[in-house]
Amino acid sequence: MAMFESPQAAEKAFYSAFEQGDIEAMMSVWAARAEIRCIHPLGSLLTGVSAVRASWIEIFRNQVPRSVEIERVSTVHGTDLAWHTVYETITLPLQRQRFPPLLATNAYCRNSGGWVMVLHHASPIGMVDTAPFEVREPAATRH
Amino acid sequence: MAMFESPQAAEKAFYSAFEQGDIEAMMSVWAARAEIRCIHPLGSLLTGVSAVRASWIEIFRNQVPRSVEIERVSTVHGTDLAWHTVYETITLPLQRQRFPPLLATNAYCRNSGGWVMVLHHASPIGMVDTAPFEVREPAATRH
Repeated sequence: MAMFESPQAAEKAFYSAFEQGDIEAMMSVWAARAEIRCIHPLGSLLTGVSAVRASWIEIFRNQVPRSVEIERVSTVHGTDLAWHTVYETITLPLQRQRFPPLLATNAYCRNSGGWVMVLHHASPIGMVDTAPFEVREPAATRH
Repeated sequence: MAMFESPQAAEKAFYSAFEQGDIEAMMSVWAARAEIRCIHPLGSLLTGVSAVRASWIEIFRNQVPRSVEIERVSTVHGTDLAWHTVYETITLPLQRQRFPPLLATNAYCRNSGGWVMVLHHASPIGMVDTAPFEVREPAATRH
């Protein structure tokens, strides 16, 4: 586990590992703790080091050049916890494929030696414009 | 803006306001700060009090009884920031409608008077089992 001098430095290392498909670099950004949480877009909740590691191995299985553009829209730093909200735009240059932007919440924790990642929650956005909880007609009125 | 003695107390008030469709109670849980962030399932990033408030007004427009079951799966508390990861299961009893569980990351900040909400990021889950970034065949091979 690496230690970073700031949440920004940890985040930079996270996206660099993501771009490079480097599993060891990726996992060095994460806290080596049971409570780490990772939610890939539309995926399930992953808990703990081995589940998080397995998910990145799966993502990195396709060793294609990948670029991840980041726009950081929120930075809230506490004494020992921090979180960032970022837009992620992933491009696969060789495939000429650009994915729609995702929104990610990344949380970091300060241990004695520095900052490490403890949460990555990414999700698609802009797929609905209205209230997310549509109310259907009551079942009784269908008869 | 209310002040809560713990992140758990703020979260309880948040989901109570959600269930009751009470916009004033909902907004009293949130920090009155420009950097608050809210991401409804598949929605866009909402920033600041007025955008967040408008989104909940839209959700509460349908004043139907609504129940929100919470399963808290992660609790990480720092000195002045905290975050929880929770499963949310929303039910509309009169419509006999139960939505699939969502995953939400909720972050709280401690001000001088207590804890308030600063982030709610909710998203659908379990819609994909595999790597979220499918690699298409390179465009060149299609000819």
